[in-house]
Amino acid sequence: MLSIVGLGLGDVEDITIKGFKAIKNADIVYLEIYTSFLINSDKQKLEEYYGKEIKEVDRIFIEEQNDTLLNEAKDKNVVLLIAGDPFSATTHVEIYYKAMNCGIDVNIINNASIMNSVGITGLQLYRFGETVSIPFFEENWKPFSFYDKIMQNYNNNLHTLCLLDIKVRERSVENIMKNKLIFEEPRFMSINKAIEQLLYVQSNNTTHSKIDFMVIGMARLCSKDQVIKSGKLQDLLNFDFGPPLHSLVICSPHLHHYEELFFNHYSQ
Amino acid sequence: MLSIVGLGLGDVEDITIKGFKAIKNADIVYLEIYTSFLINSDKQKLEEYYGKEIKEVDRIFIEEQNDTLLNEAKDKNVVLLIAGDPFSATTHVEIYYKAMNCGIDVNIINNASIMNSVGITGLQLYRFGETVSIPFFEENWKPFSFYDKIMQNYNNNLHTLCLLDIKVRERSVENIMKNKLIFEEPRFMSINKAIEQLLYVQSNNTTHSKIDFMVIGMARLCSKDQVIKSGKLQDLLNFDFGPPLHSLVICSPHLHHYEELFFNHYSQ
Repeated sequence: MLSIVGLGLGDVEDITIKGFKAIKNADIVYLEIYTSFLINSDKQKLEEYYGKEIKEVDRIFIEEQNDTLLNEAKDKNVVLLIAGDPFSATTHVEIYYKAMNCGIDVNIINNASIMNSVGITGLQLYRFGETVSIPFFEENWKPFSFYDKIMQNYNNNLHTLCLLDIKVRERSVENIMKNKLIFEEPRFMSINKAIEQLLYVQSNNTTHSKIDFMVIGMARLCSKDQVIKSGKLQDLLNFDFGPPLHSLVICSPHLHHYEELFFNHYSQ
Repeated sequence: MLSIVGLGLGDVEDITIKGFKAIKNADIVYLEIYTSFLINSDKQKLEEYYGKEIKEVDRIFIEEQNDTLLNEAKDKNVVLLIAGDPFSATTHVEIYYKAMNCGIDVNIINNASIMNSVGITGLQLYRFGETVSIPFFEENWKPFSFYDKIMQNYNNNLHTLCLLDIKVRERSVENIMKNKLIFEEPRFMSINKAIEQLLYVQSNNTTHSKIDFMVIGMARLCSKDQVIKSGKLQDLLNFDFGPPLHSLVICSPHLHHYEELFFNHYSQ
């Protein structure tokens, strides 16, 4: 059996009792480390709390070498741990599908993810439009498509949740070309960097008007030292949110009553 | 202190360890029963599992009489339990705001909700547009606004999560006029009723073309006996999904590769 277990967002105790029991019954426990991470936790803390050995796995294992995991799940209890919810990332949906098609029993244990925890900003969840990912701009690669989606939501008076880029165990183009398994330092996009990129798009994209959006920055959401700060784009450009993970919401032009009260609360 | 604790969607073991500990430390535990409910659980099962007395509270208590709860939270550990996630419903956001403004410490303990658990359909969460609520049509009240939102998402190639109406401890207009605290039987909208209403809108709304949407019906999501079934509107009109809770997704016109594989899987 394969159990795909969401860990929630904060620390070791954000796991559900059902998830905890699945780990206790597991023969093998994997921890996926490249689409997100637990804010106040790590492999060691999880191992101590669960009393189990945990194997960290990266993009290559999850996307290209998942046959190992699927073969093991045919006659063993295999648990795959994911920060947040099992279905936050497309990759896990693919593994779920492959497992079902191999006739493996799959047990999905859900948990909170950024997609619903963003409700702590006071913004109403049903008023969010399409979620966007903001990728790190490279020297020769500065895609603007996320901005079009933000504008589409904005013009429909909807909020946009922006997931900020995470680069974990990535290889440089040079090392990929040389077929070298040398990994770059992990990089997590800050709210400041995201705003900088949004302003860059506004300065270089003549099709949209420059809007000084109302935004809400969220750092380490659902952890003990979460920081939530609202303001205009320019207000938050240099605000220090501290360590990762960061996310950003672009608010709809018109806020409902309680949304406005919360926005003002978080701007102080 | 006020702890607002999400219970997740399925049964007693879907609570997080953090949430469980908050209940163990509580002086008073309330369970909100009108925006949703735990599929394989009830007050009695929760009381047995937690070893605590639980008070069920309805719309009137939560929206109009919440001063009682807020006063208690000034010097006691009060827990408010919510099926799903604390921020699924607007009401809980209001209580959170009032509590913060009274200087009460508030502890939010997140969990899975329908907003992220819908990922089990294989549809990608970031491709959902605005969430809509489909209300029970009454003889003289048949609002079409939810359909406009579905079409807006559809035209932007986005999926729509439709939350189906729940009527718990509601009073008839007659009993409200007579100021009588007599409550109607609980009603939970079925997927079939929702489709019937969608077809009604299509037949009576000349501004939109009649689209035989691809839809995915979900019953008792995340519980042991969940049912997920995909098809065209007409295919699911008479399909028996069993007892509540039901939800419905209207798919975007174009599905991604894995979305299509899952859609076909669930149509069998």
